[in-house]
Amino acid sequence: MQLTAQQLETFDRDGWLLLDSVFTPPESALLKREAERVYALDRPEVFREKDGKTARTAFAAHTYNEAFRRLGRHPRLVEPVRQLLRGDVYIHQYKLNAKAAFDGDVWQWHQDYGTWARDDEMPTARAMNIALFLDPVTEFNGPLLLIPGSHKLGVIEAGHDVSTTSYPLWTLDHATIRRLVAEGGIVAPKGGPGTVLMFHSTLVHGSPSNMSPFDRTIVYLSLCHVDNHIRRFARPEWIAHRDFSPIQCLGDDCLAGLLQEAA
Amino acid sequence: MQLTAQQLETFDRDGWLLLDSVFTPPESALLKREAERVYALDRPEVFREKDGKTARTAFAAHTYNEAFRRLGRHPRLVEPVRQLLRGDVYIHQYKLNAKAAFDGDVWQWHQDYGTWARDDEMPTARAMNIALFLDPVTEFNGPLLLIPGSHKLGVIEAGHDVSTTSYPLWTLDHATIRRLVAEGGIVAPKGGPGTVLMFHSTLVHGSPSNMSPFDRTIVYLSLCHVDNHIRRFARPEWIAHRDFSPIQCLGDDCLAGLLQEAA
Repeated sequence: MQLTAQQLETFDRDGWLLLDSVFTPPESALLKREAERVYALDRPEVFREKDGKTARTAFAAHTYNEAFRRLGRHPRLVEPVRQLLRGDVYIHQYKLNAKAAFDGDVWQWHQDYGTWARDDEMPTARAMNIALFLDPVTEFNGPLLLIPGSHKLGVIEAGHDVSTTSYPLWTLDHATIRRLVAEGGIVAPKGGPGTVLMFHSTLVHGSPSNMSPFDRTIVYLSLCHVDNHIRRFARPEWIAHRDFSPIQCLGDDCLAGLLQEAA
Repeated sequence: MQLTAQQLETFDRDGWLLLDSVFTPPESALLKREAERVYALDRPEVFREKDGKTARTAFAAHTYNEAFRRLGRHPRLVEPVRQLLRGDVYIHQYKLNAKAAFDGDVWQWHQDYGTWARDDEMPTARAMNIALFLDPVTEFNGPLLLIPGSHKLGVIEAGHDVSTTSYPLWTLDHATIRRLVAEGGIVAPKGGPGTVLMFHSTLVHGSPSNMSPFDRTIVYLSLCHVDNHIRRFARPEWIAHRDFSPIQCLGDDCLAGLLQEAA
């Protein structure tokens, strides 16, 4: 799986790219079932919403779940990122964001690399997200909101918000968001399970709460070029990984065995 | 302004109807400016969000603002409701919902008539909302979410939620919403300033929070047939009015004088 010249150009200009039907319905359904199993675990990697019950985000599932271990080495996710970052990559962060029906809370406006630079001392923004939808993402269940072009601005000043949700985040202020949206607008990429969304680590984004009866799980691989690994180890290993060895991809059919077991 | 047979049929089936460009851009802009003046007033009718600052909803602006006094007697809003409710109507409730940029909070899933029946002893659901958009309503700034067909179910059991937002509300539980959405789906009517949205008083609806930099003011006239006036006066007069005399419409150009003053 290689991105075309036009896709590379779009990514460079807008900071994001949406790819339909990258994973099959059975693959997506398998991963959704596994995500539900992960959310049910009583582990420190599984953060809850403010209600203390609803899963908000589960970190590092590739270290304790076989399906997500394989997904973290899947060529359909890793190869396009290797192409964009021009070389070997490692997993900096791996998370399942639940955005649960009714109770999934907001992610405020932020840049991922802002956090990685400030908290983890990642040297440059040679890192990015590739995300896989495990549910239909619609206008109703808290889709990601992206500000196209905002990735060109480098790290933007941010404040550390420790009160709005259960998860502390470096967030951008209102005046900055007004200015960026006046220039770039907002897009909310949508698609069925199996859709893949790639976006730059400095792209400004957020997502609203989910008051619909529809869950909205998205898996995020945050991949970093191996030369650009973090220098500071202040956060838990399962939030900012310290294994900087290059991902060795599995075969394109690496989920097939699990599908057979499930059948 | 009379609704067509097909519009009446649609309203009966779905419980809502959207009418484009009912008010002109200058009329909408005038009312938006007046809404901002209302939000800035230090009056008990103006409710704030949980932050104690951002305007959430302003009641009864027709009793203390000349533009909204005229709008409350505007034939483009009153006549279609007279047609649907078959006779004279009075203003049961009048509100400006601000859904402010960044800070506008959720309105949970509810039925308006549920509250009017429980709190105000309005005898039947012979009452409805007609709403005027004063800002563009988009997928990004907390549009109303409606469950088509849910108005056919009468008053649905609800619980009194006094904690989620700054405003107490009779809200429907998750199992009920799942069931209703499985049957009717969700729609989010959108449109520019000047758009009018009519919906039945038993239609289940809500609206998500607004994390965008765009305000989203909608004016709601909740009109009730004069024979169906409330019997209980437990809430303040400016939340549930006690003047049951029929609205006497002004002329279609009733905002013209104010537009000239503003010019």
